[in-house]
Amino acid sequence: MSLYEKHKDTLKKAIDAVHDRSFYAQYPEHPSPKIYGETADKDGQDKFKASLDKKFEDLLQADPEAWVGQEESPYLQKPLGILYPSFSAETLIDRSQKAWTQWRNTPIDDRAAILVESLDRFKERFFENAYATMHTTGQGYMMAFQASGPHAADRAMEAVAFGYDELKRFPEKKFWDKPMGKFNVQLNKSWKPMPKGLSMVVGCSTFPTWNSVPGLYASLITGNPCIVKPHPGAILPMAIVVSEIQKVLKENGIDPNVCQLAPDTYDKMITKDLAENKAIKLIDYTGSSAFGSYLEGLEGKIVFTEKTGVNSVILDSAENIDKVAQNLAFSVCLYSGQMCTCPQNFFIPEGGINTPDGKVSFEDFAQKLVDNINGLVDNPKAGPFVLGAIQNANTLSHTEEAKKMGGKVWLESRTIANPMFDKARTATPIVVEMDTSDEDKFTKELFGPVVLLIKTKDTNQSVDLASSLAENHGAISCAAYTTDETTKNLIMDKMGMAATSVSFNLTGAIHVNQNAGFSDFHVTGGNPAGNASLTNPEYVIKRFTWVGFREPAEG
Amino acid sequence: MSLYEKHKDTLKKAIDAVHDRSFYAQYPEHPSPKIYGETADKDGQDKFKASLDKKFEDLLQADPEAWVGQEESPYLQKPLGILYPSFSAETLIDRSQKAWTQWRNTPIDDRAAILVESLDRFKERFFENAYATMHTTGQGYMMAFQASGPHAADRAMEAVAFGYDELKRFPEKKFWDKPMGKFNVQLNKSWKPMPKGLSMVVGCSTFPTWNSVPGLYASLITGNPCIVKPHPGAILPMAIVVSEIQKVLKENGIDPNVCQLAPDTYDKMITKDLAENKAIKLIDYTGSSAFGSYLEGLEGKIVFTEKTGVNSVILDSAENIDKVAQNLAFSVCLYSGQMCTCPQNFFIPEGGINTPDGKVSFEDFAQKLVDNINGLVDNPKAGPFVLGAIQNANTLSHTEEAKKMGGKVWLESRTIANPMFDKARTATPIVVEMDTSDEDKFTKELFGPVVLLIKTKDTNQSVDLASSLAENHGAISCAAYTTDETTKNLIMDKMGMAATSVSFNLTGAIHVNQNAGFSDFHVTGGNPAGNASLTNPEYVIKRFTWVGFREPAEG
Repeated sequence: MSLYEKHKDTLKKAIDAVHDRSFYAQYPEHPSPKIYGETADKDGQDKFKASLDKKFEDLLQADPEAWVGQEESPYLQKPLGILYPSFSAETLIDRSQKAWTQWRNTPIDDRAAILVESLDRFKERFFENAYATMHTTGQGYMMAFQASGPHAADRAMEAVAFGYDELKRFPEKKFWDKPMGKFNVQLNKSWKPMPKGLSMVVGCSTFPTWNSVPGLYASLITGNPCIVKPHPGAILPMAIVVSEIQKVLKENGIDPNVCQLAPDTYDKMITKDLAENKAIKLIDYTGSSAFGSYLEGLEGKIVFTEKTGVNSVILDSAENIDKVAQNLAFSVCLYSGQMCTCPQNFFIPEGGINTPDGKVSFEDFAQKLVDNINGLVDNPKAGPFVLGAIQNANTLSHTEEAKKMGGKVWLESRTIANPMFDKARTATPIVVEMDTSDEDKFTKELFGPVVLLIKTKDTNQSVDLASSLAENHGAISCAAYTTDETTKNLIMDKMGMAATSVSFNLTGAIHVNQNAGFSDFHVTGGNPAGNASLTNPEYVIKRFTWVGFREPAEG
Repeated sequence: MSLYEKHKDTLKKAIDAVHDRSFYAQYPEHPSPKIYGETADKDGQDKFKASLDKKFEDLLQADPEAWVGQEESPYLQKPLGILYPSFSAETLIDRSQKAWTQWRNTPIDDRAAILVESLDRFKERFFENAYATMHTTGQGYMMAFQASGPHAADRAMEAVAFGYDELKRFPEKKFWDKPMGKFNVQLNKSWKPMPKGLSMVVGCSTFPTWNSVPGLYASLITGNPCIVKPHPGAILPMAIVVSEIQKVLKENGIDPNVCQLAPDTYDKMITKDLAENKAIKLIDYTGSSAFGSYLEGLEGKIVFTEKTGVNSVILDSAENIDKVAQNLAFSVCLYSGQMCTCPQNFFIPEGGINTPDGKVSFEDFAQKLVDNINGLVDNPKAGPFVLGAIQNANTLSHTEEAKKMGGKVWLESRTIANPMFDKARTATPIVVEMDTSDEDKFTKELFGPVVLLIKTKDTNQSVDLASSLAENHGAISCAAYTTDETTKNLIMDKMGMAATSVSFNLTGAIHVNQNAGFSDFHVTGGNPAGNASLTNPEYVIKRFTWVGFREPAEG
């Protein structure tokens, strides 16, 4: 059985899923021994531990020019000591160029099969990857397993499915027969999706795989070789992914340099060397707006970005305000606000929030939120695991900045003890009250555990501020609470026009931060937060060009 | 019967056609009395004549700020004297903004039906439009009828079909049911394609409708109002189209300002005023590379361009070299080389072209081409109608430029008499021999009737030059002649990588210049000639943003 035969049903299911958009997952998100095996967790942890303080020798990239690595665990606050093979931009690009011809001439079916196989292999390392993710990003165990493992793999599968679907969308060949009256003009036509060229994926330090694999797999399925440039602070998770891809490539007789890892260090970053090279045509990037805008400004590149966003909560009315406060408290605590979908600005009318029991005042809601945050972070069985650790010390400066913004501080940020890691860098959310006159302050993303409660005249003003914020400064998510149909439509229209997804009235076990592969479109473009649209058609079709060929039909 | 019911079969057929890609046409290209009516041609000509030397009062744009018009007929070399209502950029944008809300909230089915209806109305004016096109562009009657009428309308229909297909590609709503072990998370999700904003279409003087209606209809179907800024030298053809769209909008209770005409004059162009306005999000442009690059450089815009290209002919081997010379002679004469798909650079090996009767030398082929050009242009029943007239005097300077480039002049450009218009501005092709060392000269587009015969070392060098030309300077078409399979594959690969369509071995009644709606992709991006890809999915999906909404399912 060919590799394509082995995976074609999986591929078909994934393609059906992206069109259907109801719940679908290829890789189970629950790190259960029943699913992944009794010893899977321990084996993964052992494997992670065994990789510390030595060279990472899993990659099939010959003749390293140096061995580098500066990762530090936010839980241990000490270096991981792993060294990765490093190469100059010239070497990486040269190898990518050489590998390209074979890859672009590999049939689409085979490319798809290789990529699906590589995800299945990655699955075997989900637990190892979970520990790698924890100790580079500071994510809690559950998030590290899910986001960096099955959710990332599902997002990659989604990109493969969309790519495959688009590449096969038009007939390969067609007989074209045009009646001209006395005779017919007859042509044989064919069309080829030509890949754009070399691609690179620039990773971030908080979601090293989730934000990198979609672009990587989207570029690969469309025939573009890819150089993976992870954040110097979070290399290991993508090193694991790249090594599995390389092995599958090699097994199938393909040059493993189709997918290369390009690790670097803080003092000698190679991102610009790569990005500015003429051969690089596609760039996927997650990170700061400043660097993202620099990349977008490079000539002759197609750039997919996920940059800074300022996410809003619009509070108008609710059935059960306590459940709302509880839900949002979890949202702002989850991974200490280090998610691109985490809400920052809560817009609350000065007249309060409508409920079946009457108005809940601004102050009462603020107190409920604070109480729920405290309840969560002070629960030793939940708090440390929901918060995780702070990836880098700079993030802590944002809580300091929030504190100095002049508003009433409803809740100070503080550290909490992590029962497993006594050196963990932790910070609970700071909650600060702001006024609409503080717009110059709250239009900025304060990445990390920062909540701003902004008192507005009324919901109309809340919606106006949230939508203009999204339009002018970017937004990736919006949580809205309203029981009023007219208000709901207004929010859908205004936030929709600002290209921001809206989650209405979430309570219980689903949060605005969460974003499901095969169903939720993510950062579809249209506001300054970026256009790395996981995964809509635009995300894949910009990676290749349709070219037509025609010639007279015989006879 | 609703308008949608009336047109839904037409729409379905068009959608099927864009996926099938075999021959399809909604509007018959033959200007036959049997199809269009016995008096259609005369009626159209009468209507055109009646519109001269007066105000064009067909548009539903109230309170003109001035009446302007500077069109001149290349056949009569005198002004048409038609005045159009003109408006400041501010007025146009203000009206477009106001019309937008209604248009974007008009259901997709209704938008599609209105647009198809407008094309059917345009059909009633194909003959009038043919004369309008002749006397603004200089096209011959047959081309003016076909390219500006049925072919343009087919390209518009194609854009509507693709837009409709993409807008309906994902479910509007979905119940999302995620098993969480002990319970399920259940959400109602919905997705909306949000239009990007105000759009503008900047027309050119040679193909005023063919190059304008695809972008116009693509923007409109996706919910963006559009301001049509025709070239000051070719307003009437698009004035006719816009007036028909406006009438259908009004009949259906929609603000006709959804589609506005923005005529201007050479001395006071408003393109930049419009393009630089923050509200304009989408720009479709056909014209010079310099202005196209300026538009592409504007921040916050999505720009579709068709700019300068230098098209190549690769001559390697042929079954019948006389048929080849005949075919190419017609290609370079058609509308005096004023087509974006017209070949300019003929790459011919110094060792000659292989044929079943032996090598045909460079010199012999040059002579055959010259003889065929002369045979065509000197035939009074064919020459004047194939050549048409030169749209503007500046185009003539390119034949002068070619003459001074230092190569052997195989054929001088000359004027010929047009039996119907004694004042017609005509020019036959100049044919100049060049060497590969003249690369700095032949990498430039010499728009108009200019043929450069470039002597290469061999076909490999021909292919290298043609592909690097396309990659670095842009190309829209390529004609290749080879009977060798290996050479054919090399050309497909190299020109494909340079994102240039290739027509192989065309002889007889089909020419490299021709480009069929519903089948041939046109300018799909990937080289500097532009990305106004008539019509692939990218051409429509960049005009809207997918935005998702979700909320807990009841119960």
